[in-house]
Amino acid sequence: MIVLGIDPGLANLGLGLVEGDVRKARHLYHVCLTTESAWIMPRRLQYLHEEVSRLLAEYRPDAVAIEDQILRKQADVAFKVGQAFGVVQLACAQAGVPVHSYGPMQVKRSLVGTGRAEKEQVIYMVKATLGVRELFNNHAADALALALTHLASAPLQGRTAQLLAR
Amino acid sequence: MIVLGIDPGLANLGLGLVEGDVRKARHLYHVCLTTESAWIMPRRLQYLHEEVSRLLAEYRPDAVAIEDQILRKQADVAFKVGQAFGVVQLACAQAGVPVHSYGPMQVKRSLVGTGRAEKEQVIYMVKATLGVRELFNNHAADALALALTHLASAPLQGRTAQLLAR
Repeated sequence: MIVLGIDPGLANLGLGLVEGDVRKARHLYHVCLTTESAWIMPRRLQYLHEEVSRLLAEYRPDAVAIEDQILRKQADVAFKVGQAFGVVQLACAQAGVPVHSYGPMQVKRSLVGTGRAEKEQVIYMVKATLGVRELFNNHAADALALALTHLASAPLQGRTAQLLAR
Repeated sequence: MIVLGIDPGLANLGLGLVEGDVRKARHLYHVCLTTESAWIMPRRLQYLHEEVSRLLAEYRPDAVAIEDQILRKQADVAFKVGQAFGVVQLACAQAGVPVHSYGPMQVKRSLVGTGRAEKEQVIYMVKATLGVRELFNNHAADALALALTHLASAPLQGRTAQLLAR
């Protein structure tokens, strides 16, 4: 099973691809897309949509795992991130890939064993699980953590809502 | 000049097309797209993106005028509307159509002459300007009002920011 994890954002959008199952996972790819605030919004969204679509076509993941933590933020931030979130989900729908969402607590619990884990612990576990030594961009690390969370919970997917009737 | 006005929303997205210039405007089309909250989010966004893309291809507007009033709302509402706003802007970018944004006050001022106008006055002016008698859906009426606002201000476009470095 190939999973694409996505840490959605407008200025920084983390993407991480892993392959495997609940017992063994392999690192395929990660990247952090960045868009400049000087670009007009349609251009920023088009860039994100194109790059996510390209990765979906290249790796053909079985599922997408996306971070769902937005509602506590301010309205203007939520509005910006919402736009990026929208075009990412659109790319997934167009590629026919199901989208699953996980909150930060779920990711921490899945990787570290407690929802109160620090970010550094999560990144450490991502590296250890995937056997990768290089320093990650934080957004890419979050994306890989999401993908691993989905791999670990995929056997339970009958219980997990397939994103987001909201 | 053909202008597509868009009142962005997730459950209800108003679209209105007008043709003309600052002196004379003609009604081309209007519709309110609706998506059901029971649909998963990627499906809702894909439907909106497809329908907006279809209208852009069919009418080939010179510009899009979109409502920009979101920031006062709650974070969860802003996040939802942001997702719809994102795929709409993406469709415009993909069609190569410039996007301009107008706040509700600008629309009221442009159509009624004062930013404190009531909604009913705006709808009345939309109907009078376009010579249309039928009852509009409110979202479609808002979309037509946005398109008319752009027609009226297009001669000044050198001054209007071409959307949205936010």
